[in-house]
Amino acid sequence: MDVTARIEQALAAAVTRAEALGSPPGLGRAIRHAVFPGGARIRPRLCLAVAEACGNDDPSLADAVAASIELLHCASLVHDDLPCFDDAPTRRGQPSVHAAFGERLAVLAGDALIVLAFETVARGAAGVPQRLPELIHTVSRAVGVPSGIVAGQAWECETRVPLANYQRAKTGALFAGATMSGAAAAGAEPGPWRVLGERLGEAYQVADDLRDVVGDPKELGKPVGRDAALGRPSAAHELGIAGSIRRLEVLVAGAIESIPACPGAAELCGLILAETRRFLPKELARRAA
Amino acid sequence: MDVTARIEQALAAAVTRAEALGSPPGLGRAIRHAVFPGGARIRPRLCLAVAEACGNDDPSLADAVAASIELLHCASLVHDDLPCFDDAPTRRGQPSVHAAFGERLAVLAGDALIVLAFETVARGAAGVPQRLPELIHTVSRAVGVPSGIVAGQAWECETRVPLANYQRAKTGALFAGATMSGAAAAGAEPGPWRVLGERLGEAYQVADDLRDVVGDPKELGKPVGRDAALGRPSAAHELGIAGSIRRLEVLVAGAIESIPACPGAAELCGLILAETRRFLPKELARRAA
Repeated sequence: MDVTARIEQALAAAVTRAEALGSPPGLGRAIRHAVFPGGARIRPRLCLAVAEACGNDDPSLADAVAASIELLHCASLVHDDLPCFDDAPTRRGQPSVHAAFGERLAVLAGDALIVLAFETVARGAAGVPQRLPELIHTVSRAVGVPSGIVAGQAWECETRVPLANYQRAKTGALFAGATMSGAAAAGAEPGPWRVLGERLGEAYQVADDLRDVVGDPKELGKPVGRDAALGRPSAAHELGIAGSIRRLEVLVAGAIESIPACPGAAELCGLILAETRRFLPKELARRAA
Repeated sequence: MDVTARIEQALAAAVTRAEALGSPPGLGRAIRHAVFPGGARIRPRLCLAVAEACGNDDPSLADAVAASIELLHCASLVHDDLPCFDDAPTRRGQPSVHAAFGERLAVLAGDALIVLAFETVARGAAGVPQRLPELIHTVSRAVGVPSGIVAGQAWECETRVPLANYQRAKTGALFAGATMSGAAAAGAEPGPWRVLGERLGEAYQVADDLRDVVGDPKELGKPVGRDAALGRPSAAHELGIAGSIRRLEVLVAGAIESIPACPGAAELCGLILAETRRFLPKELARRAA
């Protein structure tokens, strides 16, 4: 089975558990809406790519961990889109969860997705429980306080924002969680994989800032120009378009340099380059080619 | 160290981790506000009582698990109090989290508390990883979908609500999580401890309904009469005050009957009776004595 199919299957298994008999039907629908149809699934793809590079001796655990990273990403999107944050009417080309199901079910769907993520990791690790403490720790650090995505979002509520902390938490943390948990799922030491995730997270943030300036709302499935409208820091505004593309190239090169010695390093390197082209706006990918 | 001190210390350790260097200060303050000063800490006390009854061979794990149950309870209170749900201005005698810190930090504090709960369990189980999959599973089921407290809250968004499902999820689930995870923390089979938790949860719900009718807002630290105002089901309205007290006695007796055979069964029984008197409104406890 290819990577995309494995990720979708692991996500479908988790979401189906959430809809089990006795579940309030509205919440089940809101959770499904938050997860399907998906976006680019960049984080779980990265997680599986690292697990593969480390030998992936327990593919069902790696699939579960990759799914949990995506569930946490979906949870953060649902809560970020809420009226009290970005008040985003659309996401991935469809109404945002609160627009479709109301604010209450959007809060609860985000909560349920966080819980589901941890449960998914634990189910995946039932056969190798000795890997679970490290996995839970890695995933928690990526998403919680002091420096996970929830902390990243909370920096938007502060008047004085250390930009590096903000960006590392808001985007870098879950990318680092993806690479580190991918390694841990395969029984490898997660620490050496942090830098790869952080650099790719930063590269993705630059690409995302660029898409917010030059992207096509139809291609993105969400409105553009939001960073400027909401006064958020943006590489595209600070460095310009050409400067941002150069920054992106430097970050991706640095990411590839940081790949720890492992059986599948060369394949992982090729995969990262292909993914980078994939998450640039089409117009810029043509220019950069 | 007595039980109260152990619980407060385990909670303080978790909250202090959330405030570590690099954490956005507002979020750290909101998390602390959500956890301290505490309420009756009934769920973690129950969790520790069951761990003790099962031999409690790893007290630091039991303390961590008890703290995680309380962190999840605090998370649910923060989100339940939000303007889109109960819009509660006060909680535990102080402003609710969104009243003190704004809606955005209240959403994020709830999210962070959920993550912190799972991280706390995993840290506690670092020395006995083989207990961790069952613990994560037990805690997830208590709080998530299809039948945990998040699902319980989501039933309030449905037009047709099966009352038993609603009450079991809204209150019973986390009590069952407390008894089951207490057993699992001590290496015992959690399943046989479910009924005790569910019955005590139901008893607590009856007591809580009574307090909403006859309680003193100063003693409770929150307004009374909310169930009637919000049109929520209430034992006190359905059965009357005398009928509710009788129902409570039946439930507590049934709970005690359900205690599985274990080294500390007699002590646990005495403890449950003492706690029951503790969570009745003072006026009714005098009448029931």
